[in-house]
Amino acid sequence: MGRRAAGKEDMAQKWTGKEVAQDLDQKTAAEVSRLIEAGIQPTIGVIRVGEKAADLSYEKGLVKRCEKVGIRVEKFLLPEDVSEQGLRDVVREVNASPQIHGILLFRPLPKGMDEHGILQEIAPEKDLDCVTDASLAGVFAGKAGGFAPCTAEAVIRILDYYGYDCTGKRAVVVGRSTVIGKPAAMLLLAKNATVTIAHTRTRDLPALLREADLIVAAAGHPHTVTRECLGMGQTLVDVGINVDENGKLTGDVDREAEETLAGAYTPVPGGVGAVTTSVLAAHLAEAAAAQSAQGGDQKKCQ
Amino acid sequence: MGRRAAGKEDMAQKWTGKEVAQDLDQKTAAEVSRLIEAGIQPTIGVIRVGEKAADLSYEKGLVKRCEKVGIRVEKFLLPEDVSEQGLRDVVREVNASPQIHGILLFRPLPKGMDEHGILQEIAPEKDLDCVTDASLAGVFAGKAGGFAPCTAEAVIRILDYYGYDCTGKRAVVVGRSTVIGKPAAMLLLAKNATVTIAHTRTRDLPALLREADLIVAAAGHPHTVTRECLGMGQTLVDVGINVDENGKLTGDVDREAEETLAGAYTPVPGGVGAVTTSVLAAHLAEAAAAQSAQGGDQKKCQ
Repeated sequence: MGRRAAGKEDMAQKWTGKEVAQDLDQKTAAEVSRLIEAGIQPTIGVIRVGEKAADLSYEKGLVKRCEKVGIRVEKFLLPEDVSEQGLRDVVREVNASPQIHGILLFRPLPKGMDEHGILQEIAPEKDLDCVTDASLAGVFAGKAGGFAPCTAEAVIRILDYYGYDCTGKRAVVVGRSTVIGKPAAMLLLAKNATVTIAHTRTRDLPALLREADLIVAAAGHPHTVTRECLGMGQTLVDVGINVDENGKLTGDVDREAEETLAGAYTPVPGGVGAVTTSVLAAHLAEAAAAQSAQGGDQKKCQ
Repeated sequence: MGRRAAGKEDMAQKWTGKEVAQDLDQKTAAEVSRLIEAGIQPTIGVIRVGEKAADLSYEKGLVKRCEKVGIRVEKFLLPEDVSEQGLRDVVREVNASPQIHGILLFRPLPKGMDEHGILQEIAPEKDLDCVTDASLAGVFAGKAGGFAPCTAEAVIRILDYYGYDCTGKRAVVVGRSTVIGKPAAMLLLAKNATVTIAHTRTRDLPALLREADLIVAAAGHPHTVTRECLGMGQTLVDVGINVDENGKLTGDVDREAEETLAGAYTPVPGGVGAVTTSVLAAHLAEAAAAQSAQGGDQKKCQ
């Protein structure tokens, strides 16, 4: 999709996440059905320490999504004061279970725990959200195998769904976190975009963004992308989920600016955030299929 | 260093690797002396399969560099037709040896071997050239611990030595390989440059490069960066080592263009390539120091 001149009668296209999620869920549900018919019940192991509101809210959405596509959810709920060893034991138990095909471990873990070390306990083939070094290295190297972080992949899923061809496009990712900015940049690079990673130390962000065909805003701050940052007809993917000065949910991009200047944009809420649990469910179905195929192979070898 | 207007009397600065290597070797030699006095002989294990000319040439340079700074080299030479298991056994043996502090395994390995799997056998603390997923994930995440790929780090060492401050600069890395382009981009990002990764599918590379303050050419093709790609007074780091149509060693950047238009540039040969083995030696000294400190701690605990 090229740039276009925007006018009052020519508003930006709103690329909502709902359709993307529905499309993906449909495919996941079909795959899950196939597995169930073959005697495998795809199951996700959710490990949660404590009762943080954000975790509970995400978990609720995840459980709903999983039920919708036929994935069983098995929860491992640990008290806030669980020992590091206690948590490691649970991760190992879930790793070892052939009935559980993927793991979601809520982060951050309680202070004082060796989070990086604990995450490495997760078997790479059950690592649904790219928390192990093996998965992270795979995303960095652009190799197949290993799942990308769900939110970063949701960005790509939206672009794919709405038919955006990244090849040769200038993409600017604002934000350099290991969970979103950097992996999103690598996924865009794998789709042949020319990718720039911008951040808090970038000089003249508005000038840089005006040159971009595609902007992925993942700074985690409202008003990161303002009217002066936008040219005409650009594509904007807003990964930010912030609460603004009026207590309202808002992205990193100013809404008025994107509505009048962008060629297409993802809203907040209802954009990237609406797709992430669908990506997680898709990963789980893929992991279950891979593990059952492997199990089948092993049987054959015996 | 800012841009400047270049004229005939105002040639570009040539940033040669020799001084950078000497400076680094001096520090490495001091660290090695300190370790030897403490009863530890820093030792690198070089594992080579077959007799490829490029490997032998690199090894020769490496041995010379190691001798210069006091590092002992232990070679493990395997025939081209070694079995995968045979190679794995050697890697494990070197891993297990407390007398060897780091491993260099020449690549590519013979066809048919599971190179990725074999590389993962290397203990992360002995991984001098970022071949394990743990090291690669560390570079991607911008975490301390784990060594960066030597060539990518050589780029940074040169910039540091000549006092180039990356903060806020627009850097364009041409090339997206996992051994050079991508890790160089991550290291520049960690130094607060705004980094763009360009590649063969980039549209209008000359226009993109003209906007850059710093160009890191790591495409592996001569004439990648030509006169039309350059503005005035830019900083150019040339990672390419190519043989041109006349059989002469040449970088990715056209020499005449860099000499007349750049503010500063690294030559080929004598630039980045002259620094890589010094970086490897520095990694080995650091690994030896870390392992001896750990050994000391373990003793204390007993």
